[in-house]
Amino acid sequence: MSPPPIVRSRKSLRTTDSPINFYIQKALETPGLISLAAGLVDEGSLPCEAVAQACQAVLLDPRRGPAALQYGSTQGLPRLREQVLHLLGQADGCSPHELNLTPDDVVLTTGSQQLLYLLAEVLLDPGDIVLTEAPSYFVFHSVLQSHGVQVLGVPVDEGGLCLPALEELWEQLARQGAAERVKLLYTVDYFQNPTGWTLAAERRPQLLELVQRFSRRQRVLVVEDAAYRELRYEGPDLPSLKSLDRDNRWVVYAGTFSKPCAPGLKCGYALLPPEIREPILHLKGNHDFGSAHLVQHLLAELIDRGEYQRQRDRLRPLYRHKRDVMLDELAATLGQEAGIRWSRPAGGLYVWLAFADLDTGPQGALAQAALEEGVLYVPGEFAYLPADGERPPHHACRLSFGVATPEQIREGIRRLHRAVRRVRHSTGTASAGQLNSPAVPPRGTVA
Amino acid sequence: MSPPPIVRSRKSLRTTDSPINFYIQKALETPGLISLAAGLVDEGSLPCEAVAQACQAVLLDPRRGPAALQYGSTQGLPRLREQVLHLLGQADGCSPHELNLTPDDVVLTTGSQQLLYLLAEVLLDPGDIVLTEAPSYFVFHSVLQSHGVQVLGVPVDEGGLCLPALEELWEQLARQGAAERVKLLYTVDYFQNPTGWTLAAERRPQLLELVQRFSRRQRVLVVEDAAYRELRYEGPDLPSLKSLDRDNRWVVYAGTFSKPCAPGLKCGYALLPPEIREPILHLKGNHDFGSAHLVQHLLAELIDRGEYQRQRDRLRPLYRHKRDVMLDELAATLGQEAGIRWSRPAGGLYVWLAFADLDTGPQGALAQAALEEGVLYVPGEFAYLPADGERPPHHACRLSFGVATPEQIREGIRRLHRAVRRVRHSTGTASAGQLNSPAVPPRGTVA
Ligand SMILES: Cc1ncc(COP(=O)(O)O)c(C=O)c1O
Ligand SMILES: Cc1ncc(COP(=O)(O)O)c(C=O)c1O
Repeated sequence: MSPPPIVRSRKSLRTTDSPINFYIQKALETPGLISLAAGLVDEGSLPCEAVAQACQAVLLDPRRGPAALQYGSTQGLPRLREQVLHLLGQADGCSPHELNLTPDDVVLTTGSQQLLYLLAEVLLDPGDIVLTEAPSYFVFHSVLQSHGVQVLGVPVDEGGLCLPALEELWEQLARQGAAERVKLLYTVDYFQNPTGWTLAAERRPQLLELVQRFSRRQRVLVVEDAAYRELRYEGPDLPSLKSLDRDNRWVVYAGTFSKPCAPGLKCGYALLPPEIREPILHLKGNHDFGSAHLVQHLLAELIDRGEYQRQRDRLRPLYRHKRDVMLDELAATLGQEAGIRWSRPAGGLYVWLAFADLDTGPQGALAQAALEEGVLYVPGEFAYLPADGERPPHHACRLSFGVATPEQIREGIRRLHRAVRRVRHSTGTASAGQLNSPAVPPRGTVA
Repeated sequence: MSPPPIVRSRKSLRTTDSPINFYIQKALETPGLISLAAGLVDEGSLPCEAVAQACQAVLLDPRRGPAALQYGSTQGLPRLREQVLHLLGQADGCSPHELNLTPDDVVLTTGSQQLLYLLAEVLLDPGDIVLTEAPSYFVFHSVLQSHGVQVLGVPVDEGGLCLPALEELWEQLARQGAAERVKLLYTVDYFQNPTGWTLAAERRPQLLELVQRFSRRQRVLVVEDAAYRELRYEGPDLPSLKSLDRDNRWVVYAGTFSKPCAPGLKCGYALLPPEIREPILHLKGNHDFGSAHLVQHLLAELIDRGEYQRQRDRLRPLYRHKRDVMLDELAATLGQEAGIRWSRPAGGLYVWLAFADLDTGPQGALAQAALEEGVLYVPGEFAYLPADGERPPHHACRLSFGVATPEQIREGIRRLHRAVRRVRHSTGTASAGQLNSPAVPPRGTVA
C-alpha cells in the first residue's frame, strides 16, 4: 500500500527550480561544450596556497584553533566584522564613524545569498511589491517568487537603473493606491548581473532621494547588492549608496567574499539599519545560529596578512584580460553581423549581448544551434520575472568570462558566431556596436 | 525628520529571540562564572591538527584545491554524500541498498539546524500541528513558533517518547477533527537535548507503526534528529528509525558533524524521502545554493583518512569521564538532599536535573542564588513551548558537561548544591535518586 501524500507548505508550492539550473544541467551532458553560462569564478587564480597557509596559522595557534572549530555566534566573528567595516570605509573613502556604523551593524552570512534570503523573509508577505532591475539577478528573483510577492521591473541602461522610469512606475503605483505595498528596491549597482552595467555616480543620490520621497507611510529599503564591486577593471570606484545613507536608515549593503576571494568559503556580509538587525539575527538564529566559524577565522587571517587584498588586486588584470578577449572576439565576429549589440562592462563577470531579431530562448533555434556548435549561454529571459502569462524579453544572452580560459572564451564566441550565422541564413541591416539603450521597456501594471 | 517605520513580515513578527540567549548573554557578564548551560563541545579535544592536515592535503592538491574554493552544488559534494551513507550503514548494520537509499537522497546543509529549518519551511503553514517531545530542543521550538504552527508536546521518560501518551493525544486530535493538521513528529531519539534520554529499542518500530496508523489523509513525517547519536558512552547503538523505514517514505534522518567532529565546520546532512528532496533543494537554492564547499572537502578528506572516525571514537571516553564526574558529584552533593532526581544519560552532553519543589525559572530564587554562587544552568522551562498563557513546567534544569572541564564540572555542581541549600533553608523529605518518570504530564488541548 502506498503511503498517503506529503502535504507541502504554500511557500514550498511557490518555490520552483530556476529554469536555468535545468538548462545548465542538461547542457553539461554535451561533451566538449564551452560554457559561457556558468556564474563561476576563474579557477586557476583561486588562492589555494594563501588559504592553506591561513589554515595552518589559525588551526595550529593554541588559542585560535579550538575557537575556530567551536561554534561561533549568530552574528559572526567580531574581528571579521571589524575588518569588513574597515574595507568598506577604504572603498568609500570615509570612516565607519562618519557613516554611523559599528561592527554591531555587520552580520556575516553564508554568502551574500543568505543575506538576500533573510532580508526577503524579514520584510515580505505575499502581495507585497518589490521593485527590481529588469533584467536582474535570477536567484533573487526566485527568492521573491517563493515569497509570493509581486515583482516590478524597472529598465536599466548603461548608467544602471533608469530613474525616470522608476519615478513613473512609482507614481503610477501611488495613483493606484499600491505604493504602500512597496517594501524594497533591489539594485545590483556595480557591474550588474546580467548586464555588466553600473549605476552612474550622479544617479546614486537621486535614487536615494526618490526612495525617500516615495516612502510615505512605510520605509522602502534599498538593497544594494555589491557582489561584484571589487572586480573593477577600469575607472574609479563609485561611492556606495550605503555611504550616501549617513544615518544608516535606508540602505542594506550586501557584500561577499565569493567573487574577490573564493566562493568555496561562502562568506558574505551585510550592513544593516538598526531596526532590522535584531529581526535578521533572530531569523538567522533559527536558520543555523551562525555560519561556518572556521571560514570566518580563515578570512580574518587572510585580511590580517593582506592576502585577501593582494588576491583581490591580482584578479583585476586577470579578469580585465578575459573581458578584453571576449569583447575583442565579439567585435571580430558578431561585430561583422547586423543588429547585434553588447555591453562593455567595466568590471564583474558578464557581457550582455542583444539581438535586434533573434530569439535567444532555451527552446529557440539559436540555443539549439549554439549547443550543436558546442557553446552555452544564459538565455536573457531567465533574468526577467515574467508578468502573468507574458513571455519576458527574449532577444539577449548573458555571456560570462568568469570561469572560461581566454582560449575557451575566444573559441566560444566563434562558435556562437557560427550559430548565429546558421540561424540567420541571411544578413540583417541594423548596425552592430555597443549596447546602451534600455534593455526592456518599463512595465508598470500592478495586479 | 525621522524616516517612516520599516514594516516587517508576519513571519518576522512571530520570530523572537530565544529567551535562553538573553539569559546566557546576561550571565556571561558575571566574572568567574562556570557555565553548565552552554551547548558547546569540549574545546581541548577539537581536532585542530587533523583539520589543518586535511586542509593542506585538499588545498595543495592541484585538482581538489581549486574545486574546494569554487562554488559547489546546492545538494553538496557527492563524495561526502556517499561517505555519509556509508557511515550510516555502518551504524545501522545494513547496506544503503537495503534501505533503498543512494547518495541522491542525501543533502548537505549548514549544520543540521539548517536542515531542520528547511524542513519546517517546506512543510508548515500557520495553523498546522507539529508533535514534539516535551521537553525538547529549544532552537527547533523557535523555528516552529516562527512558522506559526501549533506545537503539541508529548512527555518523555527514560525510554524516550511516551507512546501511550502520544496515542492518546492523537486520538483526541482525531476526535476533534484536527488530526489532518498534523504534519510532522519531531524526535531527538538519541541522548536527547535536554534530558539525555534515548528512545528505547522496542519503542522504535512502535512509533513508526503509530505514525503510519494516524497518517490517514496526509503523511506525517518523522524527523529523527540524531545530533548526539555518535556521542555514545555505554550500551549498544540502537537502530535508527530511518533504518526501520525500508522504503524511505516516513523518516527524515538529520545528522551532523558538529558534535562528533567540530561545530566550527557547521556541516550537517539529511536523508530525505524522495517527495521532499527536490522541494528542499529548491528552497536551499534560494537560501544559499550550497553550503561552504571547502568544509565539505575537508570532511571528505577527514573521513577518507579515518581521522573523523578516530576523533569520534576518541571523544567517547573523554565525555564519558566528564559525564561520570558530573553524576558522581551530583550524587555526592545534591544526592544528600531530598526531592531531587536526575537523568543518567548513556551519551550526549546533558543531564536533566529535576526538583520536587524548587522553581528553577530565570527569575526565581534558585537561578539568582546559582548566579551568585557562580554557576549557570539552563532553566528547564526554556525547553518547553508554553501553551497560551500557561507557564511551562519549571522545576528542572539542563546541565551540560560539554564544554566545562572535569574540575569545572565538579566545582559547578558544588556551587549549585550551595545555591540549592541557600534557597531551601530547610531539608525536604522526598527521596533523591535517578530520574525516570515522565518529565511533564501530557498536554492535548488543541486551539
Ligand atoms: C548579483 C549577485 N548577488 C549575490 C550573489 C551571491 O553570491 P554569494 O552567495 O556566493 O555571496 C551572486 C552570485 O552569483 C550574484 O551574482
Ligand atoms: C538536538 C539538536 N539538534 C540539532 C542541533 C544543531 O546542530 P548543528 O546545526 O551544529 O548541526 C543541535 C545543536 O545543539 C541540537 O542540540
